[in-house]
Amino acid sequence: MSRTKEIRIYIIGGTAGMGKWFADFLGSKGCHVRVSGKGEEASIPVLAEWADVAVVAVPIHVTLETITKVGPHMRHDDLLMDLTSLKAEPVRRMVECSHSEIIGVHPLFGPAVESPKGENVVLCPARGRSWLQWVRKLFSEEGMHLVEASPEKHDEMMAYVQALTHLATVAMGLSLRDSGLEQEELLKFSTPAFRSRMDAVEKVFGENPRLYGDIMAFNPHSASIGKMFQRNVSRLLDFIGQKDAEGITSRIKKS
Amino acid sequence: MSRTKEIRIYIIGGTAGMGKWFADFLGSKGCHVRVSGKGEEASIPVLAEWADVAVVAVPIHVTLETITKVGPHMRHDDLLMDLTSLKAEPVRRMVECSHSEIIGVHPLFGPAVESPKGENVVLCPARGRSWLQWVRKLFSEEGMHLVEASPEKHDEMMAYVQALTHLATVAMGLSLRDSGLEQEELLKFSTPAFRSRMDAVEKVFGENPRLYGDIMAFNPHSASIGKMFQRNVSRLLDFIGQKDAEGITSRIKKS
Repeated sequence: MSRTKEIRIYIIGGTAGMGKWFADFLGSKGCHVRVSGKGEEASIPVLAEWADVAVVAVPIHVTLETITKVGPHMRHDDLLMDLTSLKAEPVRRMVECSHSEIIGVHPLFGPAVESPKGENVVLCPARGRSWLQWVRKLFSEEGMHLVEASPEKHDEMMAYVQALTHLATVAMGLSLRDSGLEQEELLKFSTPAFRSRMDAVEKVFGENPRLYGDIMAFNPHSASIGKMFQRNVSRLLDFIGQKDAEGITSRIKKS
Repeated sequence: MSRTKEIRIYIIGGTAGMGKWFADFLGSKGCHVRVSGKGEEASIPVLAEWADVAVVAVPIHVTLETITKVGPHMRHDDLLMDLTSLKAEPVRRMVECSHSEIIGVHPLFGPAVESPKGENVVLCPARGRSWLQWVRKLFSEEGMHLVEASPEKHDEMMAYVQALTHLATVAMGLSLRDSGLEQEELLKFSTPAFRSRMDAVEKVFGENPRLYGDIMAFNPHSASIGKMFQRNVSRLLDFIGQKDAEGITSRIKKS
């Protein structure tokens, strides 16, 4: 699988977001890449038959049905992979509906990243070994850090890394909106820490809210981890209600 | 008040944190600065009598009693100011216990800032005008942005900018600790957004937890604004419980 230039790659959802990023990335490496976007489902069987590697890079909430459409067209020595922010269900579905090799992939950065060097990529190899070296090399030769994990472990980690982070950010953004304060006014009174938080809010609110909604709603661990966060917020509010600064401080220090 | 070199400045709490930063800052401008730290209360009357300007830069929870010790020693043409993260109570106490000019000051950055240029400083002028121009020039000639506000307005803005930000950060940090996951493991699976959040957590947990506890516990608006945050977290958890990604998305979009 080292003859990268001859590999034919089909990216479903390759016209936007991480799918487009991956198409550009593979194109820059001399791969033969074809993409299809929204409303081009008719081309799926044809392009899947043509391809050596099919990459599912559609929004989370249509990932499973897309896998079901593309999977059966991949041969046993082809590779079927996805770029979804969740892994357990998509990988299970890929294994179920295809005879090909299967690798779940999650690049842990967004398509607007300046350089992917130093960023993390999770690989969940699920069936077959012959494409794995190619996939590993693809990312690692650009300086990305690879971590291999089971789909279940991936989703558990993402509940903290993504779902919890987004929950805090969205709740912060909604509270700032509830305040009725103008952004300009807030900026005049802002600290560096607050501006960093506002940047995060603006990214979530301005960029692709559905992606964040999907990650929060569909990660199997986000409800329980979100409740842990809620309990900690409530405990801190109890201290605040009692003006108990020492209580907050000792809770922080108890590490 | 343009003869900066001859102005005698006494900073109570000038041996650490923002007090030390301010002592260094004034020293670099050629002011004659003397400081006293923890356990040096005996020197307060002597140094206050000596000084033209007294600056209270002690931790929030000992600010009011410190003001009470220094205030009576300042003459009517002296300046008494503080650097506290809260303004309503400290400014009121300064006005009550001294006959001097009074300005509440809050530099909206920490002592570890690389350069204060571009950072914000809140001024709450409360009595007298003859020192105000000197204070304004002090910060603005270094490129800091000044905003003048009433102590009450300052505290309301800080409830969002500081107390709410710290509430979210501390709750996040406590939840990550509750997870039992090693930081190294989390970093292997981290996104840029998560690393930015972890940096904020490390700053609060590692630096000066009592400062954050004080800001959260003693800001008069932090309880009500914290409850607003808690309500938004609960609403988002309701959507997560129902796997309602569209609900989260439409809530984000309703701006």
